[in-house]
Amino acid sequence: MSKSRSDTPAVLCGIHAVEGALKSGHRGLAEIVHERSGGNPRLNAVLSRASNAGVRLQQASKDVLDQLAGGVRHQGIVGLLTRAPTLGLAEFKDWLRDCSPNATMMILDGLEDPRNLGSCLRSAAAASVDAVVLPAHEGAGLTPAALRVAAGGIHHLNIFELGNWSQTLGQIKAAGFWLMGASERAERSIFEFDLRGRTAWVFGSEGGGVRPLTARHCDALLKIPTIEKFPSLNVAVAAGVALFETLRQKRSIST
Amino acid sequence: MSKSRSDTPAVLCGIHAVEGALKSGHRGLAEIVHERSGGNPRLNAVLSRASNAGVRLQQASKDVLDQLAGGVRHQGIVGLLTRAPTLGLAEFKDWLRDCSPNATMMILDGLEDPRNLGSCLRSAAAASVDAVVLPAHEGAGLTPAALRVAAGGIHHLNIFELGNWSQTLGQIKAAGFWLMGASERAERSIFEFDLRGRTAWVFGSEGGGVRPLTARHCDALLKIPTIEKFPSLNVAVAAGVALFETLRQKRSIST
Repeated sequence: MSKSRSDTPAVLCGIHAVEGALKSGHRGLAEIVHERSGGNPRLNAVLSRASNAGVRLQQASKDVLDQLAGGVRHQGIVGLLTRAPTLGLAEFKDWLRDCSPNATMMILDGLEDPRNLGSCLRSAAAASVDAVVLPAHEGAGLTPAALRVAAGGIHHLNIFELGNWSQTLGQIKAAGFWLMGASERAERSIFEFDLRGRTAWVFGSEGGGVRPLTARHCDALLKIPTIEKFPSLNVAVAAGVALFETLRQKRSIST
Repeated sequence: MSKSRSDTPAVLCGIHAVEGALKSGHRGLAEIVHERSGGNPRLNAVLSRASNAGVRLQQASKDVLDQLAGGVRHQGIVGLLTRAPTLGLAEFKDWLRDCSPNATMMILDGLEDPRNLGSCLRSAAAASVDAVVLPAHEGAGLTPAALRVAAGGIHHLNIFELGNWSQTLGQIKAAGFWLMGASERAERSIFEFDLRGRTAWVFGSEGGGVRPLTARHCDALLKIPTIEKFPSLNVAVAAGVALFETLRQKRSIST
């Protein structure tokens, strides 16, 4: 896959996604398009909250909403973002220079299913991840399907889309990050590895895992310790397990 | 929701699900129905493996496969199970009597989305869970959609569907299990709690969480320590995090 995503609409679909954007201070949420709310109390509550927050409301037909949502279930409401939802190389360099000595980064190495991408972003936001790096021209993008599953998580993350992958991985390591690839074929377990300090997790695609070029840059390949007969985890679940173990170790909580 | 699931077909949909059943020794896999394989090498490999394992193969039209799959994506292959995929009260009592002093149980308290149910089962199998308990008459059942997402995980699990919920929870506690409910509103974190010994995790529905009746039976309510501003996790991700933390503690690995 190597198509450009410059034409991807920045749209939040569904009550949950729009609610998430409003709760987080509606950064970038410029306008809400909705069907006649009728008697749906949850939709009414979201619209009222949006109105109080000064977000522009616009009523439209179901056909218009279907069109905006691009096939994603929207429950009669979509939010339109004005700002580009991702950041580029200049911002990334600034972030690398200024980030905390305990920062956690998540690198998604070409996920193909937008729902898995969205689920990884939701988990990353909840697990206090500081930055997410996506390849600019490969894998699933921040499409309506991904944003809906992310359930507002993107508003709590710095998300960078970067082009030159080898150079990007080099910059991350030069900034003092340990680069760790999740792999079910790895020998060492995430539970045996020191995950404190600046750490960057790489999660690969659903079928192929971390790509060979990316794996060569990794300081360590680590596995979630699944049972031998069934070494099978959804990538978003694997990301959740690895990111919360990282959080556990960084907070130095032990039992 | 309270409809019976006695009419649910026991069907595995898609290459990955059928492959998973074959790899695990095809317990209960009686027959594979498939489209003409054409030049798909992965489909051919699965069919050849099935043939060698003595599983009956039957070619059918796309219409027949669509019908069997009940709307789930099947990629030209479905596996048919003969045995009922779940166990009942008599087997549950036997299991409770004989299970290990370190057994882990997962109780799904009325999940509504079959994909989340399937994802929880996949994670539970990978995380070495010994038994899964589902309410017999509520929530999503083991439909083709759930089985496909479970990716063969059901073949590594004892799955019980039980009717009298209060009585079931009582029996679990009487067998010496700690009953722990996952709740984002809980005060204690899973990382601060001793999860060794016989432990039973309860995960509730996507919208409402663990039901009040069930929560009253719990010995503890525990949270995944998400950030305050975004206390939001997919139920299958939360289950993955909790189950692998349980595994970590039971294996007494610490960092």
